[in-house]
Amino acid sequence: MAKEKSKVKIIPLGGLEQIGMNITAFEYEDEIIVVDCGIAFPEDEMLGIDLVIPDFTYLKDNMNKIKGIVLTHGHEDHIGSLPYLLKEMNVPIYGTKLTIGLVENKLKEHNLLRSTRRKVVKQGQTIVLGNFKIEFIRSNHSIADAVALAITTPAGIIIHSGDFKIDYTPVYGDVINLQRLAEYGKRGVLALLCDSTNVERPGFTMSEKTVGKAFDTIFSENKRSRIIIATFASNVDRVQQIINSASKFKRKIVVEGRSMINVVNTASELGYLKIPKNTLIEAEEMKNFRDDQIVVISTGSQGEPMAALSRMAYNNHRKITIRAGDLVVLSSSPIPGNEKTVSRVINELFSKGAKVIFQDTHVSGHACEEELKIMHTLVKPKYFIPVHGEYRHLKKHSELAEDLGMKKKNIFIMNSGDVLELDDKKGEIVDKVPADAVLVDGLGVGDVGNIVLRDRQHLSKNGLIIVVVTISKQSAEVVAGPDIISRGFVYVRESETLIEDAKKVIREALDECLNKKITDWSRIKSTLKEALSDYLWKQTKRNPMILPIIMEV
Amino acid sequence: MAKEKSKVKIIPLGGLEQIGMNITAFEYEDEIIVVDCGIAFPEDEMLGIDLVIPDFTYLKDNMNKIKGIVLTHGHEDHIGSLPYLLKEMNVPIYGTKLTIGLVENKLKEHNLLRSTRRKVVKQGQTIVLGNFKIEFIRSNHSIADAVALAITTPAGIIIHSGDFKIDYTPVYGDVINLQRLAEYGKRGVLALLCDSTNVERPGFTMSEKTVGKAFDTIFSENKRSRIIIATFASNVDRVQQIINSASKFKRKIVVEGRSMINVVNTASELGYLKIPKNTLIEAEEMKNFRDDQIVVISTGSQGEPMAALSRMAYNNHRKITIRAGDLVVLSSSPIPGNEKTVSRVINELFSKGAKVIFQDTHVSGHACEEELKIMHTLVKPKYFIPVHGEYRHLKKHSELAEDLGMKKKNIFIMNSGDVLELDDKKGEIVDKVPADAVLVDGLGVGDVGNIVLRDRQHLSKNGLIIVVVTISKQSAEVVAGPDIISRGFVYVRESETLIEDAKKVIREALDECLNKKITDWSRIKSTLKEALSDYLWKQTKRNPMILPIIMEV
Repeated sequence: MAKEKSKVKIIPLGGLEQIGMNITAFEYEDEIIVVDCGIAFPEDEMLGIDLVIPDFTYLKDNMNKIKGIVLTHGHEDHIGSLPYLLKEMNVPIYGTKLTIGLVENKLKEHNLLRSTRRKVVKQGQTIVLGNFKIEFIRSNHSIADAVALAITTPAGIIIHSGDFKIDYTPVYGDVINLQRLAEYGKRGVLALLCDSTNVERPGFTMSEKTVGKAFDTIFSENKRSRIIIATFASNVDRVQQIINSASKFKRKIVVEGRSMINVVNTASELGYLKIPKNTLIEAEEMKNFRDDQIVVISTGSQGEPMAALSRMAYNNHRKITIRAGDLVVLSSSPIPGNEKTVSRVINELFSKGAKVIFQDTHVSGHACEEELKIMHTLVKPKYFIPVHGEYRHLKKHSELAEDLGMKKKNIFIMNSGDVLELDDKKGEIVDKVPADAVLVDGLGVGDVGNIVLRDRQHLSKNGLIIVVVTISKQSAEVVAGPDIISRGFVYVRESETLIEDAKKVIREALDECLNKKITDWSRIKSTLKEALSDYLWKQTKRNPMILPIIMEV
Repeated sequence: MAKEKSKVKIIPLGGLEQIGMNITAFEYEDEIIVVDCGIAFPEDEMLGIDLVIPDFTYLKDNMNKIKGIVLTHGHEDHIGSLPYLLKEMNVPIYGTKLTIGLVENKLKEHNLLRSTRRKVVKQGQTIVLGNFKIEFIRSNHSIADAVALAITTPAGIIIHSGDFKIDYTPVYGDVINLQRLAEYGKRGVLALLCDSTNVERPGFTMSEKTVGKAFDTIFSENKRSRIIIATFASNVDRVQQIINSASKFKRKIVVEGRSMINVVNTASELGYLKIPKNTLIEAEEMKNFRDDQIVVISTGSQGEPMAALSRMAYNNHRKITIRAGDLVVLSSSPIPGNEKTVSRVINELFSKGAKVIFQDTHVSGHACEEELKIMHTLVKPKYFIPVHGEYRHLKKHSELAEDLGMKKKNIFIMNSGDVLELDDKKGEIVDKVPADAVLVDGLGVGDVGNIVLRDRQHLSKNGLIIVVVTISKQSAEVVAGPDIISRGFVYVRESETLIEDAKKVIREALDECLNKKITDWSRIKSTLKEALSDYLWKQTKRNPMILPIIMEV
């Protein structure tokens, strides 16, 4: 009797509560492959946090099962957490040339380059990792060299769309390999994991090439201005199109912003970016050219305060200052949450006399509704797992699949950490593994948790008041203080009476405690805190953090 | 010889750096009228601030010149600061019935109702305040009873558009009085101040009535669901249309959210809202009806965490809980900056099994490009001052005016506080008065300034560390401590070594100071601060606020 086939497990460790932090483990018997390993950017209430990475507990607990990490493309939300995972375990990485190139920049920064095995895989190529056969299928996205994955396991074939759009006229390379996806569909696909980012948008995403046409129009209509274009550093095709327009209109190119310089170097070294000779100049050489001979390509299209464009706008850039007559193009659209910062930069640019174009020079890298329908129709999976989105997107995407005829019971809207077990008979969530976001603050990974964040939120809203008093152990008398120190509460010089009165309140509460012979410091502290808190709320309707400190001598 | 005519001064005290805090003084000789008196909502970096009001210094310094305050409509960014101004001075208020009704709610809250003179003026009516003749011209906006103003002064006629759109089929009242504006234009207008909010949007703003049709469609397509609609409380016409659809489809109405209840009460008392008898029910009565017999009208369409809709979505509402099968409509679009909070509420609603509609059930209250062109063409002013916008909007609006044939030198993009002096020969900025935003935090008005905000920002990002030590005055020896207390920095239990080592650093630095016989406490403090700051940066790459406290006994 033939041995019964095992089931395959799909375990997303992030990426299902927000757009960001994509990482999914695929497990078959005692083997695991991991697809992508990204970061998320901190939410507003994560005060002081630099970035957010996945919880690697499950992977650490199953370290010797892991055969490798397979990457779909080189965006931060897909590769950004790699250094943090690689500090925990040494596993080989597989990706296309540009993806691995961008990963290597990261590994260098984190001193992990020598220790990490990495393999460049071509679009169309298949690799074998134990029981997993993984084909890298050519795809289109807002970064070159993106792939979808066909993961063949003994339990069936799983298609992971990666981040994709259908670009019939891409700038680099060829249209997504729809035929290959169709072949897999014909053969029979067990499950599809599919990008949900743009499911709420009807129709099709425009081709990246349309942006190039827009640039040409802008260049021809602004022949006398210096042109400064800000865009996403990782969008190599966008940068290529700016370079194309620049050389068509005989302008020299200045590249500004650390990540833009990095990507331009990596992409041109690897052949993803063609820059005509003698086109690139340094910012210092700009003075040798007229304004109409220059294009600056810069970071900062999301209004990031430290990026090149903001520094130019606010006159903080060492080399480039915005002048009246400049044309600034924001070739991007604000990521939700960045609208206000972007708007501020636009205001600042306008007020310096620049002309600003911030519409119609951007297309998305993600498939809209009609493209998603094509993907579903070609792949025709038995099970469907919408990924890469907030709940609203996953939900909408599951409705789209139902409209196309899928059975509701075969669609799984998963939470990060859910363990989905599948074979051709049945799919079910069988387990839950740790998958809470881990916060990175400076060098600290995971040492800032909810208590610390709650304190930061409290401090941020109302500031703090420290009450310090020294008490004699012997006599139980106050020998110094009480003193009050405040930060972020009120401007002390204008509120002297308030602070003086607060001291009186403290002194009275303290005297009462000491008269009653209370010697339990923590009881005294909470009495002081309560008295002061009541007083301040009555006087100001504010609720600062109050920290009573008793020194004993 | 006839006495030479004086010039008129236009002094915006807010509203030109953001959308919000609208207030403008018009001054002729020794008389002033003030148009509107609004609040702004705090920017992200104004941590803990409740609201932002204008600087009233100029008005206080010229108190006895002020003839009255004239209001264009009842939105918070036009009336919200009135109580704060009225606490400084007692001046009469003029506005239409609904506007005054909403102001009265505010005055009651601030105990100012009895002391404040207020006069209801009808659309079309003219009032005389000293040298100023002010006509209240019927207008359209996202609140009923809005007006534009024609301010006739001896120096010429000034048109203030207020917030407006052109609604040919408004829900309440009639279309904006374009003929009257044209008459003024024919007669000759010195200056136009015009709403710039939607200048970046091409075409026309849709009529409010189109939303009513959308509601009817939604009601007829969701006959079996309980329907919950969130919208702006002040949009009385929107609420009326929900009521209309509800009664057409024989549903009872529950009103939820404090401001929604307030506005519904005021508007129906004053006749701006027609509610059929026996339609309104209390939330408690919902149990007597089937889901398909109920509509809830609620606040919270901007995702405000304390508003009714958020509380329902997060199961914090005392009376209403979202259930699978509910239909929730967000009849609004997110105000820039609120995108993420709105999105969270949508996710939460979806995850409770509700159906959520958040598109195509809202129209703006502000004129788009083509409507602005109509306004300019009818009024044909000599001078133009774009108002109600960020710099990008004012700039774009000034370009629109130029395109329509205005001379650039007759267009003034003003900053709040600029004093523009005009007559038919010349316009120029002649002075600058205080117009910085004043921050309100709890009961405190203006006691939170830049230093306090900077401290809050610092605390919010990295938390704080308090170092406290008691030193004997006589022996210059440490008699207690040093102790370290931290909040919002690291989770202490997991970072014991770090804190212990930090104590050692402090002790060493302290010993060195005392050995050197340094007795200048402030010098010791800064030495401790520096040593600890260096140590922590090396260990954590974080920069908490460090507060050294020395107690002397």
